[in-house]
Amino acid sequence: MNIKNYMVQLGQNARAAARSIAAASSGQKNQALLAMAEQLDLDRELLKQANQLDMQAGRDKGLDAAMLDRLALGDSGIDSMIEGLRQVAGLADPCGEISDMNFRPSGIKVGKMRVPLGVVGIIYESRPNVTIDAASLCLKSGNATILRGGSEAIHSNQAIAACIKSGLVAAGLPETAVQVVETTDRQAVAELITMPAYVDVIVPRGGKSLIERVSRDAKVAVIKHLDGICHVYIDDKADLDKAFDIALNAKTHRYGVCNAMETLLVQQDIAAEILPRLAAAYWDKQVELRVCSQTMAILAPLAGSPSLLLAASDSDWDEEYLAPILAIKLVQDLNQAMDHIAQHSSGHTETIVSQDYSRVQTFLAQVDSASVMANASTRFADGFEYGLGAEIGISTDKIHARGPVGLEGLTSQKWIVFGDGHIRA
Amino acid sequence: MNIKNYMVQLGQNARAAARSIAAASSGQKNQALLAMAEQLDLDRELLKQANQLDMQAGRDKGLDAAMLDRLALGDSGIDSMIEGLRQVAGLADPCGEISDMNFRPSGIKVGKMRVPLGVVGIIYESRPNVTIDAASLCLKSGNATILRGGSEAIHSNQAIAACIKSGLVAAGLPETAVQVVETTDRQAVAELITMPAYVDVIVPRGGKSLIERVSRDAKVAVIKHLDGICHVYIDDKADLDKAFDIALNAKTHRYGVCNAMETLLVQQDIAAEILPRLAAAYWDKQVELRVCSQTMAILAPLAGSPSLLLAASDSDWDEEYLAPILAIKLVQDLNQAMDHIAQHSSGHTETIVSQDYSRVQTFLAQVDSASVMANASTRFADGFEYGLGAEIGISTDKIHARGPVGLEGLTSQKWIVFGDGHIRA
Repeated sequence: MNIKNYMVQLGQNARAAARSIAAASSGQKNQALLAMAEQLDLDRELLKQANQLDMQAGRDKGLDAAMLDRLALGDSGIDSMIEGLRQVAGLADPCGEISDMNFRPSGIKVGKMRVPLGVVGIIYESRPNVTIDAASLCLKSGNATILRGGSEAIHSNQAIAACIKSGLVAAGLPETAVQVVETTDRQAVAELITMPAYVDVIVPRGGKSLIERVSRDAKVAVIKHLDGICHVYIDDKADLDKAFDIALNAKTHRYGVCNAMETLLVQQDIAAEILPRLAAAYWDKQVELRVCSQTMAILAPLAGSPSLLLAASDSDWDEEYLAPILAIKLVQDLNQAMDHIAQHSSGHTETIVSQDYSRVQTFLAQVDSASVMANASTRFADGFEYGLGAEIGISTDKIHARGPVGLEGLTSQKWIVFGDGHIRA
Repeated sequence: MNIKNYMVQLGQNARAAARSIAAASSGQKNQALLAMAEQLDLDRELLKQANQLDMQAGRDKGLDAAMLDRLALGDSGIDSMIEGLRQVAGLADPCGEISDMNFRPSGIKVGKMRVPLGVVGIIYESRPNVTIDAASLCLKSGNATILRGGSEAIHSNQAIAACIKSGLVAAGLPETAVQVVETTDRQAVAELITMPAYVDVIVPRGGKSLIERVSRDAKVAVIKHLDGICHVYIDDKADLDKAFDIALNAKTHRYGVCNAMETLLVQQDIAAEILPRLAAAYWDKQVELRVCSQTMAILAPLAGSPSLLLAASDSDWDEEYLAPILAIKLVQDLNQAMDHIAQHSSGHTETIVSQDYSRVQTFLAQVDSASVMANASTRFADGFEYGLGAEIGISTDKIHARGPVGLEGLTSQKWIVFGDGHIRA
């Protein structure tokens, strides 16, 4: 198989299908989504058999337990995909929305219309359910999609792809509106991210190395996030009970997620009051604290288990632990906290805990991250919590889509003009 | 001079200044803009002397008349820059705008806040007034800027840069908020477009080869347009008087502009009625017509001057003439017109002329260009005509900014969250 020719063919198919999908009605798109859900339900046994092939190959290849877990697709996984499709069918169609329509002095009426991006390429790793998640969001937003899943999930993904095709056909839409790459050759990714004639945007979903590679080599726009080094700043004007709840929740609600707090900044005057209480709660959950020298002076006398209290090194302020580990640093004031965030944040999510009106306003206005919060846990930075209905990813870029990316992030706005024979004078 | 080190230094300066500019009040930014205007007025003689150095060097280098004309800066050019600065000072500040603020079931309130992109790099050619245009729009939208003008305008640009610095300092803003690259070494461009750590977006302004080169090599987002291959489609349900006015205006109002029509599509049943009238008007203005065979059959008997009527070759449908030349093709219906546009348009601006409600709706919804119009001249695709107040460029990309890019296109939206001790359950 000539991979380049194959990918160009997929690209041409997608570009042609994109026009049909962009012109499809909301009803037709929803019909396709619901038909996919039905087909998944009918094909349960086929899907599980295909997944068993992947699982066996994975075990033979020596994949670790976590990877095998992500790869597994059973009835509950199939139920989730079906439920996801129905939810996306229930979301409002972002396309066709007209906004900012105004008469201009020339007499023309100018506004904006929301339209699909065109062709979206998705590159992801082992979870087969991403195939349905990504396909459904792209379809609902009127885009054609080329999906490139992990090689270890190839059989599962092909079985899911068959259900997707069947749903598209049932709704009278071109089956090439969603194409799942059928080769595991890595060159397919290299081609996919360097075909600006056929692909408008790439969404890589997976580990940091995948995302870095895709971003470095792509010749089309990439919606991505690399790191979630999120901060909570507890101000001296904070309500310390709220601060306790938020700092505990932001770190310990879930450890392996991008919107978990990785560094806690505490105004120095209240540190002796809040930190012992927080440290006890963290240690209770076996969270390791890596702390600045001032924090060490406060916590060292209290540390029951010295293995959970360490002096922070410089690199700790730039690390995304994704684990029960937290860096803690004292700061003199809001400005020093914002300086630290400007220097070390990955631009994902930061929170101030403070009852002071002006400081909250300053923090919200000046901190340059995708989500900036006051008196709420960083864990809220999420498409569902924000009301997007679903999310294709979280972007730490500033261009195009920022933060949780839902259907709207897969669209763009064109200008529309109504005249009645108007010409430029 | 080590160009790489020099550019990194500019980048670091800009990144640091971006935080100050983002935090500056609207009043402070306006003060800086007005102080720049005053300084330009005071420095008229210096500016004209600097420009004379460039003009002399240009003549010595053998620049053609058109390039020398673009390079020239006299009192009227200085007046325009001053007026431009005052206009930008008068525009609404896009930053800080909060939208879509809603309570979520969790109790948090979530919305979006408009914020600067950060650091904008502008690469342009001979016109020195772009230095002021670009600097003022970037400053007003809260961004730091690195400007790289054409080497032939280096003295003019440095003199303008001195006025910009003086304005920034007068308003208490860092003078590194706007930096004009002081070397004419081409490596400076190569460095500027590959410093994602220091530059958030690049706006190239100039000829197609510059823009292609920048787009190909850039490692940061680029807001650009390459071509304006704009179409007017005259439907058989058109008001032919409106169609005549629009088709004439779209081609002949100005020839060298990106929003001029380059191809006219005419529904075949009305061609014999509208085309002779239009052709006479075009020929009257010495516009050369390059036409399909059906059009040729209609126009050949009428052509007084055969040199202004030619058979179109395949390449004519993909050419941006920027000249008194127009391609004309007959089509069977709206669908064939939209097919032609999908295949040959550069995605800039297209117009349908029709009184038919459904066809207008279809054209507006389905044509995938930055501006899609009904019954109006393509010449309206312009930041001023759309009410943006000013434009930094016109984008034919779909990601981030599309069509005329004003202050808003130089900003992004972050999410803001108000809680009151809220945590994820």
